[in-house]
Amino acid sequence: VGCTSQQSADAPEPDVRATAVEDVAPALAQYDAEQVRELWADDSLSARDRGLVTIAVLVASGQTTDLGFYVNKALDDGVSPAEVSETITHLGFYSGWQNAMAAVDPVAAIFAERGIDESELPAADPDLLNQDEAAEATREAEVQEQYGNVSQGLVDDTDSVVFDDLWLRPGLESRDRSLVTVVALVSTAQADQVPYHLGRAMDNGLTADEVDPLLNHLAYFTGWPKVFTAMPAVTETLESR
Amino acid sequence: VGCTSQQSADAPEPDVRATAVEDVAPALAQYDAEQVRELWADDSLSARDRGLVTIAVLVASGQTTDLGFYVNKALDDGVSPAEVSETITHLGFYSGWQNAMAAVDPVAAIFAERGIDESELPAADPDLLNQDEAAEATREAEVQEQYGNVSQGLVDDTDSVVFDDLWLRPGLESRDRSLVTVVALVSTAQADQVPYHLGRAMDNGLTADEVDPLLNHLAYFTGWPKVFTAMPAVTETLESR
Amino acid sequence: VGCTSQQSADAPEPDVRATAVEDVAPALAQYDAEQVRELWADDSLSARDRGLVTIAVLVASGQTTDLGFYVNKALDDGVSPAEVSETITHLGFYSGWQNAMAAVDPVAAIFAERGIDESELPAADPDLLNQDEAAEATREAEVQEQYGNVSQGLVDDTDSVVFDDLWLRPGLESRDRSLVTVVALVSTAQADQVPYHLGRAMDNGLTADEVDPLLNHLAYFTGWPKVFTAMPAVTETLESR
Repeated sequence: VGCTSQQSADAPEPDVRATAVEDVAPALAQYDAEQVRELWADDSLSARDRGLVTIAVLVASGQTTDLGFYVNKALDDGVSPAEVSETITHLGFYSGWQNAMAAVDPVAAIFAERGIDESELPAADPDLLNQDEAAEATREAEVQEQYGNVSQGLVDDTDSVVFDDLWLRPGLESRDRSLVTVVALVSTAQADQVPYHLGRAMDNGLTADEVDPLLNHLAYFTGWPKVFTAMPAVTETLESR
Repeated sequence: VGCTSQQSADAPEPDVRATAVEDVAPALAQYDAEQVRELWADDSLSARDRGLVTIAVLVASGQTTDLGFYVNKALDDGVSPAEVSETITHLGFYSGWQNAMAAVDPVAAIFAERGIDESELPAADPDLLNQDEAAEATREAEVQEQYGNVSQGLVDDTDSVVFDDLWLRPGLESRDRSLVTVVALVSTAQADQVPYHLGRAMDNGLTADEVDPLLNHLAYFTGWPKVFTAMPAVTETLESR
Repeated sequence: VGCTSQQSADAPEPDVRATAVEDVAPALAQYDAEQVRELWADDSLSARDRGLVTIAVLVASGQTTDLGFYVNKALDDGVSPAEVSETITHLGFYSGWQNAMAAVDPVAAIFAERGIDESELPAADPDLLNQDEAAEATREAEVQEQYGNVSQGLVDDTDSVVFDDLWLRPGLESRDRSLVTVVALVSTAQADQVPYHLGRAMDNGLTADEVDPLLNHLAYFTGWPKVFTAMPAVTETLESR
């Protein structure tokens, strides 16, 4: 997971986009050029992680306006095409199928521009990672007990498709898979699901020192209110560890 | 409410779409061809109902990318043009006016392709269904007492426009109107409103055996977290009956 | 803040749009022409405020389909180009950056049609309004105590960028800035944040008599469920004053 921050500094300025914004909201253009651009300069969360996080917010929110711009920037900053691909697939399950589908065309355009082909993308059927079987057995038993009598079909696909397949795909490290999941939850105002997945993200390697700049980054991209709505759940999770 | 599942098997494969998805996320394309397509094979929820449910998720979420594809499939599977039309109108009220408006162009394109004209659509001013006056009087009195002093305008339109007009339009059976309402609530993370409308859906004929595959279907189309956020409200409703 | 309601009556009918809607949902077209259009005739909330509120719903929800139509109407009804511009900037912070960015193109098209140029837009760096320093010190201390140990970066930007800069920009009166904030919160289902911002809106001049038609207006544009989900928080705020 190399972070080629030098390439980022050389990335072309988004001139066309900035011009259009100036014509409607000069203040928005200035905040965009200063506060938002400035986020990437704070390396308490790596530029590479910020790229993955930003893509995850946009896909999970169905916001495709600047998705190509941020995918390009993320690729410059060390996110691999495979990780972009896998993040989109993952968010089909964690933010609704059609948000993943809506991301396809803007990302296909960037992949074509950069000559990225299928050889750089994760296979549909790779060898899966090993599972923490004890933790999974606990999770499975809890969900079965809670909801098995309401929707056995949901419980079964949660096991066989989501936890025994999607989460074990090797194209995205577990820490990153958890990271984009937490981002999707905050971005879609699913605070109830934050404690489980933020705890899992920290088990998988996300540090409390990264949670601070992550929340600051999210405030811009998903809006202040959703981050504040998630804060009690985040605080509870951090304090319980 | 005929379910012409045979037609569905003859529907053209979505080749163009699958190709584009392959170029970005081969795994997403495979899950789409297998797990998502497979949902329709489980007839514990009819293919016709799955079409209506899928349209409702997409309209309520403002996701138009594949709306035409799924409207076409739903029409093949026995959803009538009138039911598509009425679902869009209903979701103007239950998911915000502009989500209904955003659905118009993609659906107009499909209706034009299939030669569906106004003679097959519900009239703007039909004869209304009879109302369960006792149940409506109870609902009205409760809302009046709760919120009349905050917004009499909202309370009045809830009565005169929503419950005394929209809900009595004959273009969509009450059970189906309730079904697309519940789908809109889960898809927009409005768990607080689920117990009332799921209870009403079951009063109107939705069975607990259909709720199981409905939740499983929704997990894919609106994402796992929103379904899990709704599960306590769903469970409470089922247990109270 | 003049309300030129006469101009509104002269605004061109949205013929093209109405025709397309008729082809898919004659009932939706009729509700649109009657109930929705009728909202503007109730002057317990001014046509000018309704314009600002409608723009805020659409931007906060990422709904651009009729954004140009409603910006045009709002400009006819006395909303200034500067207020449209500042609302978009504000909602970047309160509904996610890319919702503001997605609004740029449709609004730029209307501004170009009407010959609105940068001379009518708020400067990026204006002289700021005076702050109520005692109230801000209280807010800042509370947030610092609650969340300083989780994300000092978020707490710092909430102070320096949001409350000490954005909220003090003179392009939108404080009452209007609070109004579009409350609208964004209801539209994105952030009921937890409603009491603070609705209280602030009323401190800044929004009246309880305006809250009634505001909720009725929002029911159409953001959908009935989100308004009902916000009602307990709204009721609590009104009763506490």
